[in-house]
Amino acid sequence: MSPPEVLLARFAHGPVTDPTALAVMRLSVLDWAACGLAGRSEDVARLCHAMAIEDAGRAQATLFGGGRVPAPRAALVNGTTSHALDFDDTHFAHIGHPSVGILPAALAVAEAEGADMAAFLAAALVGVESSVRVGVWLGRGHYQTGFHQTATAGAFGATLAAARLMGLDQDQTVQALGLAATRASGLKSQFGTMGKPYNAGLAAETGVEAARLARAGMTSSTLGLSGDQGFGPTHHGAADLSGFSGMGDTWLFPTVSQKFHACCHGLHAMLEALAGASTAPGVVARIDIQTHPRWLTVCNIAEPATGLEAKFSYRLTAAMALSGVATGAISSFADATAARPDLVALRDRVHVTADSDLTEMQARVILTLQGGQTEVLFHDLDAPLPLEVRADKIRSKARALTTLADALEGAINAGKLADFVGLIGSA
Amino acid sequence: MSPPEVLLARFAHGPVTDPTALAVMRLSVLDWAACGLAGRSEDVARLCHAMAIEDAGRAQATLFGGGRVPAPRAALVNGTTSHALDFDDTHFAHIGHPSVGILPAALAVAEAEGADMAAFLAAALVGVESSVRVGVWLGRGHYQTGFHQTATAGAFGATLAAARLMGLDQDQTVQALGLAATRASGLKSQFGTMGKPYNAGLAAETGVEAARLARAGMTSSTLGLSGDQGFGPTHHGAADLSGFSGMGDTWLFPTVSQKFHACCHGLHAMLEALAGASTAPGVVARIDIQTHPRWLTVCNIAEPATGLEAKFSYRLTAAMALSGVATGAISSFADATAARPDLVALRDRVHVTADSDLTEMQARVILTLQGGQTEVLFHDLDAPLPLEVRADKIRSKARALTTLADALEGAINAGKLADFVGLIGSA
Repeated sequence: MSPPEVLLARFAHGPVTDPTALAVMRLSVLDWAACGLAGRSEDVARLCHAMAIEDAGRAQATLFGGGRVPAPRAALVNGTTSHALDFDDTHFAHIGHPSVGILPAALAVAEAEGADMAAFLAAALVGVESSVRVGVWLGRGHYQTGFHQTATAGAFGATLAAARLMGLDQDQTVQALGLAATRASGLKSQFGTMGKPYNAGLAAETGVEAARLARAGMTSSTLGLSGDQGFGPTHHGAADLSGFSGMGDTWLFPTVSQKFHACCHGLHAMLEALAGASTAPGVVARIDIQTHPRWLTVCNIAEPATGLEAKFSYRLTAAMALSGVATGAISSFADATAARPDLVALRDRVHVTADSDLTEMQARVILTLQGGQTEVLFHDLDAPLPLEVRADKIRSKARALTTLADALEGAINAGKLADFVGLIGSA
Repeated sequence: MSPPEVLLARFAHGPVTDPTALAVMRLSVLDWAACGLAGRSEDVARLCHAMAIEDAGRAQATLFGGGRVPAPRAALVNGTTSHALDFDDTHFAHIGHPSVGILPAALAVAEAEGADMAAFLAAALVGVESSVRVGVWLGRGHYQTGFHQTATAGAFGATLAAARLMGLDQDQTVQALGLAATRASGLKSQFGTMGKPYNAGLAAETGVEAARLARAGMTSSTLGLSGDQGFGPTHHGAADLSGFSGMGDTWLFPTVSQKFHACCHGLHAMLEALAGASTAPGVVARIDIQTHPRWLTVCNIAEPATGLEAKFSYRLTAAMALSGVATGAISSFADATAARPDLVALRDRVHVTADSDLTEMQARVILTLQGGQTEVLFHDLDAPLPLEVRADKIRSKARALTTLADALEGAINAGKLADFVGLIGSA
């Protein structure tokens, strides 16, 4: 069997025709662009945007928020900006956010190289797919030790997306992976700080720079990932070769999860379950939430005092959902929401318990009415969402995030990359 | 005891007055600049230089080879360029090349901020000293696992040098270290490729960008190095707090080793020993070299066929030194040298053996003359070199590397930073 570097380099330049994978990719591009446009006013986004504008340089690729700068810098800024709200997609095969690490690299290089929408979408799909596969190859231990797969696996996906768009040959692509291996980084201990979205930007920037230097003739380790003292062995990688099985024929990316609630992903199964409730909040006496034990240390703030804390509270978000507060709207997670008396009263009737028979993607909710009747609700985020249902949900989310949602979708579906880039750069 | 991040942030802005440390720093700046000027025509240097010039942007900091670009890019290019020949200094406390990771960051920021030579030298010294100390804190396991301390420990040193020159306060400096922690990278598996000098450039660039983002208000983990899932715990760090003992009062940097031979550092103790030989090559019947066992797998190519292989050959470099070939000149390591019949004949009289009683820094040479008499020579690279002896050797080396050596030394000693920068930028 060829080493991972060669498998990935071949895959990067192979055919990309799977219609479902491409359809999901288009939706993810819409979702990503909406997150980026909504994120551009966040402090971390403004700060990185200002840095790139200040440094200036050749006008090669467009920034969220406007302005054109050298491609690696655009990748950094747009990666950071699109992850600023933490509202972008997640893949649970390796636990990472594929779109924010890869799409900024693919878009910056597509614009710089004058590629069209089809080439951008194919490169983007190669990039996100390979980031998930590298992430599986690195394994759960890599993540548990403290590496942010969005940034680490993401850097390799971004490199392959850029390599495809730049038309590197196989040897150059392997060199690019080697350069990415010595530059890739990103720690989970940045969570809760601006360092988290910055990690996504770093992945994207690494991809653009590694591919470009390899094209210029820079040499590197040809076993940058898997060799002795390569990225995997040094970064607690499992070297799980099943990560590459079927690559090119089957696609892992389409099972990516978009976020439809502007809060911690650990709350989403519960919120989706509650969306099926037929009970009015006024008649609920007690709400029992059962979830995977892991989440109790992640998003179970019992009495959140701020909008930010509300994003990590089963009890308050359950009350919000039952009361018809839009958990998909960023503005719902305000300090005032956390303090609203009717929500606090309902919140105090919520009881959260762990159930280790549930997966991390499942939740069960039992509503007990004042008369003693119960309604049992269940949701599994892993259950495949029909493509049209997913499209509707993403479209609604995008519209809530930006007034440009329909224009973005139109440009993607009409294959008009220049129009799409123009919308990204809206001030 | 305060966490390492706070100790380092305090140290970064503390007094820097130790005359010996500053004297060694000035010599190291000369040595580094000469390596950079000599390295600018190497492929890896030209390639990175071209990238920075192509991207352009505000003219903030000067490149080896000429041109001014944004400070982070100048740091990347100059770090890579000055390590291209692998002829720069090494510190064996942690095994890293301090100058190439830190001085490019300090110089780029000094130029961008309009600092003077004294401020540059103080920041440079803070940077190299803290890189060695962070390297000791990370420990030998970090290095043995595969991390290139030049790049990893170097990134933190570069960050502190930049933080001092930018006038960050203590909190901002801690944030900058946190950002460096999530961006620092660099693998030893790049050795033998252009990725090795690139690693030095990455360290310098990380330092400039981390300090600048922290100044702009970017937040990060305040325990980026030492905290749960911080850089140390995730990167096989030993957390050896002795690394920070006496920091600010005693200086580890002055024991840095400059390279006076343009070949593998493992050969240097033997070459220094041979410099004391009173025997002419014509009368030598046999040469016995005794060295630490570790070096036998590093630089013991018995019959080198090329100039590059000669850099890793005890036998040929011993023959070169005895025959008066200048092992300090890069041009001596040519294919023709490896093939010279008189050198090959002498080389074949050399016998290399391991002696585990020797340290990695020591070598013993026994010359047996045709009449049977012997001359025993010994050198310990760890034995302190009187400052004036070191200055003379560095001056000679710099003159062999660049015609600008005397002008560089003059600018450093006269405290003229603008003149020094002008020389760096010579085409």
